Amino acid sequence: SPRLRTRNFASLKPLSSLFAALDTFPERHIGPDDHEVAHMLKTLGYENAQDFLADTVPSKIRVDASSMTNKTIKPLSESELFARAKSLGTENEPSKSYIGMGYHNAVVPPVILRNVFENPQWYTPYTPYQPEVAQGRLESLVNFQTMVTSLTSMDIANASLLDEATAAAEGMVMAYVNAGQRKKTFIVDTGVFPQTLAVLRTRAKGFGINVVVRDVHAAVADESLRSEICGVLVQYPDVSGTIKDYSNLAEAVHSTGGLVVCATDLLALTMLKPPGEWGADIVLGNSARFGVPAGYGGPHAAFFAVTDKLKRKMPGRLIGRSRDATGKPAYRLALQTREQHIRREKATSNICTSQALLANMAAMYAVYHGPVGLRSIAERVHGLTQVVKTAIEGMGYKAVNQEYFDTLTIDVSGATETSDGVHAAATAAGINFRQIDDKHVGVTLDESVGPIDLMSIINVFTSAIQASPLNKSELVLPEKVAIPSSLRRQSEILPHPVFNKHHSETEMLRYINHLASKDIGLVHSMIPLGSCTMKLNSTSSMIPLTWPEFSSVHPFAPIEQAKGYLTVIQELEDDLCKITGFHAASLQPNSGAAGEYAGLSVIRAYHESRGEGHRDICLIPLSAHGTNPASAVMAGLKVVPVKALTDGSLDLADLQAKAEKHKDNLAAFMITYPSTFGVFEDGVQDACKIIHDNGGQVYLDGANLNAQIGFTNPAICGGDVCHMNLHKTFAIPHGGGGPGVGPICVAKHLSPFLPRHPFLPGPQNSKAIDAVSAAPFGSSSIHLISWAYIKMLGGQGLAESSKVALLNANYMAHRLRDHYSLRYKNSNGRVAHELLIDLAEFDQAAGLKVADFAKRLQDYGFHPPTCSWPTPTCMLIEPTESETLEEIDRFCDTMIQIRQEAEDIITGKQPKDNNLLKNAPHPIHVLTLPEDQWNCPYTREQAAYPMPWLLEKKFWPTVSRVDDAYGDLNLICDCPSVEELSSQ
Amino acid sequence: SPRLRTRNFASLKPLSSLFAALDTFPERHIGPDDHEVAHMLKTLGYENAQDFLADTVPSKIRVDASSMTNKTIKPLSESELFARAKSLGTENEPSKSYIGMGYHNAVVPPVILRNVFENPQWYTPYTPYQPEVAQGRLESLVNFQTMVTSLTSMDIANASLLDEATAAAEGMVMAYVNAGQRKKTFIVDTGVFPQTLAVLRTRAKGFGINVVVRDVHAAVADESLRSEICGVLVQYPDVSGTIKDYSNLAEAVHSTGGLVVCATDLLALTMLKPPGEWGADIVLGNSARFGVPAGYGGPHAAFFAVTDKLKRKMPGRLIGRSRDATGKPAYRLALQTREQHIRREKATSNICTSQALLANMAAMYAVYHGPVGLRSIAERVHGLTQVVKTAIEGMGYKAVNQEYFDTLTIDVSGATETSDGVHAAATAAGINFRQIDDKHVGVTLDESVGPIDLMSIINVFTSAIQASPLNKSELVLPEKVAIPSSLRRQSEILPHPVFNKHHSETEMLRYINHLASKDIGLVHSMIPLGSCTMKLNSTSSMIPLTWPEFSSVHPFAPIEQAKGYLTVIQELEDDLCKITGFHAASLQPNSGAAGEYAGLSVIRAYHESRGEGHRDICLIPLSAHGTNPASAVMAGLKVVPVKALTDGSLDLADLQAKAEKHKDNLAAFMITYPSTFGVFEDGVQDACKIIHDNGGQVYLDGANLNAQIGFTNPAICGGDVCHMNLHKTFAIPHGGGGPGVGPICVAKHLSPFLPRHPFLPGPQNSKAIDAVSAAPFGSSSIHLISWAYIKMLGGQGLAESSKVALLNANYMAHRLRDHYSLRYKNSNGRVAHELLIDLAEFDQAAGLKVADFAKRLQDYGFHPPTCSWPTPTCMLIEPTESETLEEIDRFCDTMIQIRQEAEDIITGKQPKDNNLLKNAPHPIHVLTLPEDQWNCPYTREQAAYPMPWLLEKKFWPTVSRVDDAYGDLNLICDCPSVEELSSQ
Ligand SMILES: Cc1ncc(COP(=O)(O)O)c(C=O)c1O
Ligand SMILES: Cc1ncc(COP(=O)(O)O)c(C=O)c1O
Ligand SMILES: O=C([O-])O
Repeated sequence: SPRLRTRNFASLKPLSSLFAALDTFPERHIGPDDHEVAHMLKTLGYENAQDFLADTVPSKIRVDASSMTNKTIKPLSESELFARAKSLGTENEPSKSYIGMGYHNAVVPPVILRNVFENPQWYTPYTPYQPEVAQGRLESLVNFQTMVTSLTSMDIANASLLDEATAAAEGMVMAYVNAGQRKKTFIVDTGVFPQTLAVLRTRAKGFGINVVVRDVHAAVADESLRSEICGVLVQYPDVSGTIKDYSNLAEAVHSTGGLVVCATDLLALTMLKPPGEWGADIVLGNSARFGVPAGYGGPHAAFFAVTDKLKRKMPGRLIGRSRDATGKPAYRLALQTREQHIRREKATSNICTSQALLANMAAMYAVYHGPVGLRSIAERVHGLTQVVKTAIEGMGYKAVNQEYFDTLTIDVSGATETSDGVHAAATAAGINFRQIDDKHVGVTLDESVGPIDLMSIINVFTSAIQASPLNKSELVLPEKVAIPSSLRRQSEILPHPVFNKHHSETEMLRYINHLASKDIGLVHSMIPLGSCTMKLNSTSSMIPLTWPEFSSVHPFAPIEQAKGYLTVIQELEDDLCKITGFHAASLQPNSGAAGEYAGLSVIRAYHESRGEGHRDICLIPLSAHGTNPASAVMAGLKVVPVKALTDGSLDLADLQAKAEKHKDNLAAFMITYPSTFGVFEDGVQDACKIIHDNGGQVYLDGANLNAQIGFTNPAICGGDVCHMNLHKTFAIPHGGGGPGVGPICVAKHLSPFLPRHPFLPGPQNSKAIDAVSAAPFGSSSIHLISWAYIKMLGGQGLAESSKVALLNANYMAHRLRDHYSLRYKNSNGRVAHELLIDLAEFDQAAGLKVADFAKRLQDYGFHPPTCSWPTPTCMLIEPTESETLEEIDRFCDTMIQIRQEAEDIITGKQPKDNNLLKNAPHPIHVLTLPEDQWNCPYTREQAAYPMPWLLEKKFWPTVSRVDDAYGDLNLICDCPSVEELSSQ
Repeated sequence: SPRLRTRNFASLKPLSSLFAALDTFPERHIGPDDHEVAHMLKTLGYENAQDFLADTVPSKIRVDASSMTNKTIKPLSESELFARAKSLGTENEPSKSYIGMGYHNAVVPPVILRNVFENPQWYTPYTPYQPEVAQGRLESLVNFQTMVTSLTSMDIANASLLDEATAAAEGMVMAYVNAGQRKKTFIVDTGVFPQTLAVLRTRAKGFGINVVVRDVHAAVADESLRSEICGVLVQYPDVSGTIKDYSNLAEAVHSTGGLVVCATDLLALTMLKPPGEWGADIVLGNSARFGVPAGYGGPHAAFFAVTDKLKRKMPGRLIGRSRDATGKPAYRLALQTREQHIRREKATSNICTSQALLANMAAMYAVYHGPVGLRSIAERVHGLTQVVKTAIEGMGYKAVNQEYFDTLTIDVSGATETSDGVHAAATAAGINFRQIDDKHVGVTLDESVGPIDLMSIINVFTSAIQASPLNKSELVLPEKVAIPSSLRRQSEILPHPVFNKHHSETEMLRYINHLASKDIGLVHSMIPLGSCTMKLNSTSSMIPLTWPEFSSVHPFAPIEQAKGYLTVIQELEDDLCKITGFHAASLQPNSGAAGEYAGLSVIRAYHESRGEGHRDICLIPLSAHGTNPASAVMAGLKVVPVKALTDGSLDLADLQAKAEKHKDNLAAFMITYPSTFGVFEDGVQDACKIIHDNGGQVYLDGANLNAQIGFTNPAICGGDVCHMNLHKTFAIPHGGGGPGVGPICVAKHLSPFLPRHPFLPGPQNSKAIDAVSAAPFGSSSIHLISWAYIKMLGGQGLAESSKVALLNANYMAHRLRDHYSLRYKNSNGRVAHELLIDLAEFDQAAGLKVADFAKRLQDYGFHPPTCSWPTPTCMLIEPTESETLEEIDRFCDTMIQIRQEAEDIITGKQPKDNNLLKNAPHPIHVLTLPEDQWNCPYTREQAAYPMPWLLEKKFWPTVSRVDDAYGDLNLICDCPSVEELSSQ
């Protein structure tokens, strides 16, 4: 029933209420209104929210209400937020950076900007674990993979990693694992980007790998190293811009049994012999220059490609082609058994959230430009770089590198005293070059450079020597291409139809829209994914991010040019500390898993600083997310599992026993709070005390922080460090599988160890661990989203959100409890912000699996909850505060009706092998089968419209149930070719 | 087959090509690439485009190639366009205007901004003439109508008019017609907005109405006028801000048999007694303050509501509820027989394109805020206005009006010499007030005003008298509401569920997305609507329009604050003159029909200036669009129809005879070129000569200008004036039925007569006709779109576009000619940019109507072409240049296959009353009917997937065929109420 609230003619309002803004955010963010909140409380038997909270959150860990008030964090209205963001944006200098090192001025095709990056149909969906309602972005990610394999000439590529530096670290670890974890030397060429090296050093630590930085040819030739080499990393072209031939190197490395890892640049590869053709085993890099803004460091999609024989060791998500139950081609996540959520501490990596949205943008960029377009862009960038070189060499400067694609390292000494003058002239012209040393300056050109930019670049060099500016007519192009002839690309790129037919904007728009139409997102209905917190991603928080003031800043630009960003970062860190009760934060980690790894590395560094570097045991409950054990291993820890009681809570006795047993080596304990079963455990503080008493530190996995804000916090629970998933609790949209941000907050004693970064000027803490991501502040542009979210809710709005998240979940548990087995609740009968229902009984009774319920939910227009995690027979349901009572009731009614459909199967009214659940989902092409092929013992209407409201509004799966096994057996991870399409 | 274009390693490019931009627009805008163009030419038997053009466009009217070259209009790349637009944007002052008079600072809810205004799913569809694929925006427009009827308390409202001033003109004419066209006096109260008065004066002329501006009570009391009064117009609240009680007036006017027309403000009506409760017959106004940016004058949706007894005389589109073939509720355009396209010169108005997109935004704003939210906004605006009044009265200023909603007319004389000082202080504070006279200043508050703005406003007044600024704590609120108690609203507003349940952003987003998902647009497939030119609406041209630099400018802001806009306007006018061959332009008309009316009024003024004001005959071919005769009548002309020959071209002999017969009174001839049959008539110059020889002027309807650019133009054809539909030829998106822009260009002798406007400062031409739209330059913000379109294509790109538009149409004609009767072509066998096929034979053979083919096209995922216009048995098909060969072939294959389906009906393989065409379209709920209800002699697959590609991509109609007659018989034009919904 609608909420009709008519009012009599108002008497005068007080002045204070006239001054209060009307476009306040909490009312828009939180689904249920006061009326609905009251209704839910009443249904649960409470007079007021206080009583409900008292029953839900253990009193021992309750924090003072004033910890999260509108005084702590003052709320801004939506228009105040815009004004603030605008004014901070103007504090970022509008300089143009030609610094390179993996970051460029991107030209985002407007059709992609508006229809992908700024489109909630693309940015609100979750990771495509439900392929039947995700064929759009699965296809787009396959385009990404195909783009990467074609440009690199490798066999197989994944659907993105977090950034180039962490991708290189993954490559290093793959090389190490490939060599049986025995050879411990990894050679990093001197031409590798410094930020990549920093991240490699951090990562090497956990595995005890020796990173040797040296000219790679010399290192490999060094007999003293050969037998220990598990792999090498080269940058192609290298940081100086030079293009080197690594064919011989590859042979030499292979002869030692090592792997060649190559960091490279997709645009350059349209003109260069691809690494796959000269023997690289692993090829990686940043795809951002394919139409993704710099954003002061990200988010960007790193790519990662390997040879066929390495494919089962590859980290990250991989999309493969398979077929659906009717034999129709269908995409899906492939080889999931490699991933941390299955393999846990044996996984090849901890990566979970990656960079799907940005990978999709890059793939769409390739679709839009096609092979000829990409090549034209590359040729222009290269040609203009040549023009720069010739022009400035005419002034006495000298390019150190004669063979290059887009980057020149310029020796200034023939023209001027030191490089300072050049940088000063650049600054005056609103330009940033790379600062190398006092004799050398780096210049990297990109797609954005046109004639005007070109002249500005060149005339920085005239200006530095007080010469008069050149003009366009004086420029000349050298006589030959500056790419060694043996390294010019001969092979074709991107011959697949998808890259060759969407080149008009109309076609591109239709393709984007068509793919979007296949995917369920928050624009359609509740996505009640437990542990994923699929809440509103408000438009207000999304808008500033694509303003040029924020999107165009290079992550290594001089820090005084990024004042707006630094304020946002500082305020976000402060607010996160207030919320968690901790002392300091780092925003570097660009996913939850990366946060775990960073936090554990901080703990290790802390132990080391106290001479306890030997502490290497990490206790982890069996119920923990797969990233926890995988991250622990990466941080060099040994995982010791801790049992859970049948009610889902920690077995404190087991914990005590394990902690004491390992007390000399105990490094850490990882705990998720509320637990992954959706319960606030009473004993959390006791557990933490046990750990502390035995010399360990407590890592609190903050994925469930949405349950806590304002009522408790990780510090009071007893943690020393926690990560947050800003893409859950703090409303960064999931982007169909990323981006994410996984900052960590730490207690005071751990704060000196928070990660440093080579491109942060000024003194850095000598105790700090090295970088954990490529950019100084990780994926800076999307920090804006969480910053805006927190500022617009204000302290009280944050607490109110958590309260309603708890209430929604408990109301749902109440409505479902007579129909499903609620697996865990506390002694007051309360769950936390999510609920776990166990479907094991249906398997026993009628062979109905979790997936059958999940797929049937799709027929009702819902994205299923988290399936088979944290326990295989369960569904974990999290409504969040953003869902209204009406939507929650709609979901509960659906669940109850599916329960009834299951009952018909159990009682034999419907056959066990041919029924509404087993055959779900029912896409339209199945529902329209001819009479003689409709072999179902129910009507098409029962399949399609089991609830009356579906006639008005229903999201349609586009394929029937996808065959997982078939896809893994017949692994194909790129787009169909011309031949395939024409044979269809 | 895909266009695979691999290339060898390029040799060096010349410098000039390195300097050329890569993000050039023509390649993106024009669908077919060179390869496809060559293929189409070859198919038509041509070696080159020149030969094709020679056969297509008559040589007599060809213009010199240099008339449209890249020298004439230099092309900008997409990024250059952005840079230019940004820099022009900064030339508009960021002042805040509190000028009012129907224009306010709107607060656009971000979720509506991004998901409606900036969403091609909403802005690219056409007018919902095909209701089965347009239920989304039909529902939204019904929300708009309901919002208007509820707030005004009137019986019925239409789905928008062009602006408040033209809506008032429509109201005046309705009053005049209602009084049998005998009473010729229309009283306009002195409190009416001056721009409204200007437009009324223009409009009154054509009908010979006497506009009497006078205090309305006095005028009605004046016995000398009473018997002549057809109606009165009041502004409520009036221009001074005063709220007057018109109940007695209404009685008095009704007693004379006249109508009361009331211009009003929707926000005020949440607090004021609605006009429907005190006796108004027609209520109208601008809905823009409901979340639509000012945009320097528009586009905005005017609303228009009437009492039940006037509903069949109401102008504009009206949406009604009806049912589909299965009885399911469905929306559709109602009472179309009132409109110009049916009634032509007998129509009540010429309005065709209206303001659907903006009406949808306003409706969504009401959905988002709901009754309580709207009322709160109003109360705050009113309260703050009271605060201003009290504060400044404390300084010696005096508000002239004691009863007001948001507007104060302030007498400055108690505080300072003249108003100049106040305006000077305002300017210094970046504020504009209304300039009334040297003693009075107008201030109008709006939703955007918060405490900071409030203090700025108040302290302009302190500053003007050199007093020290007030601060917030010194403010006081008066003791009572400043609305007369008899005029306070008692009745409830917007009780319908739709306005009471989408108040969280998540729900709002889902509602917007759900409605969008029901509508076919250019994001899905070709919309080959003849005469509508549904081409690409590029993202680049759409982006600048929502930048605040452009969206926030008040149309009556001092002209020196709008320099950026004025440059855009000047450049657009210049370019349109180049394109048409004419001398001067006016951008005021905000639709094609408004352009016709403006152009004909200019012609009348010209004749008058030469002492030939008696010339009042307008010759119009029978094939003309309905707006032509309707506009002619509005301009005071008598329509004399001219025959067409069987090949669709003008009957020159008939023209000559009619021209000679009427030579003493011949005013004008209206001709569409190429004709509405899609033919370049050879005799166009001869026809124009006949007219000129007989003292008439030629009006060229430029709806088909897309066929001409660069090869011919209206001037060389012999015209004196033409309008253009910028929403056709110049790529403004159709917005689901508007906005549009219909500028006129005129030959030199007509240029002195182009419309003036009361808010253009400086001397205006004394010969000029009065205003034709409320804002000085019409819907200024969207001029940016056409400006960008022209600038990005450049002269050559424009010509190339026209060439490909002609080629696409001719290729289509070629492919269809063996399957359908092509009704008209020239002696070389060529059509122009569109083709007319005649389906009469199918009706004869098997009772198959045009609609049956159209609805079946929906099953193939296409929006049908224009149906039954210009001749009832035909389809008019226009592909435009933006469609690729693949899309055109897909459409042709579809048409050919439908032809085959028709053949099966003709030959009796399928029954005549139950077949694929008669039953079309087939929505999913029909396709899933149980076996015993599927009574069709074909399979569900044949219905749903008649082509294999539909399995991959298909747009689904959401209802089956809509019953037009039922809806008109049972007219319901509001949203369902609570009761109705609960009884469903
Ligand atoms: C409990 C828990 N911990 C850690 C993670 C990992 O976070 P991310 O996917 O951002 O790497 C998740 C993600 O779902 C989670 O649910
Ligand atoms: C030939 C012709 N003239 C005039 C018009 C009226 O234009 P508008 O709808 O912009 O008022 C149209 C609209 O379709 C048309 O096709
Ligand atoms: O809108 C038309 O009537 O063409």
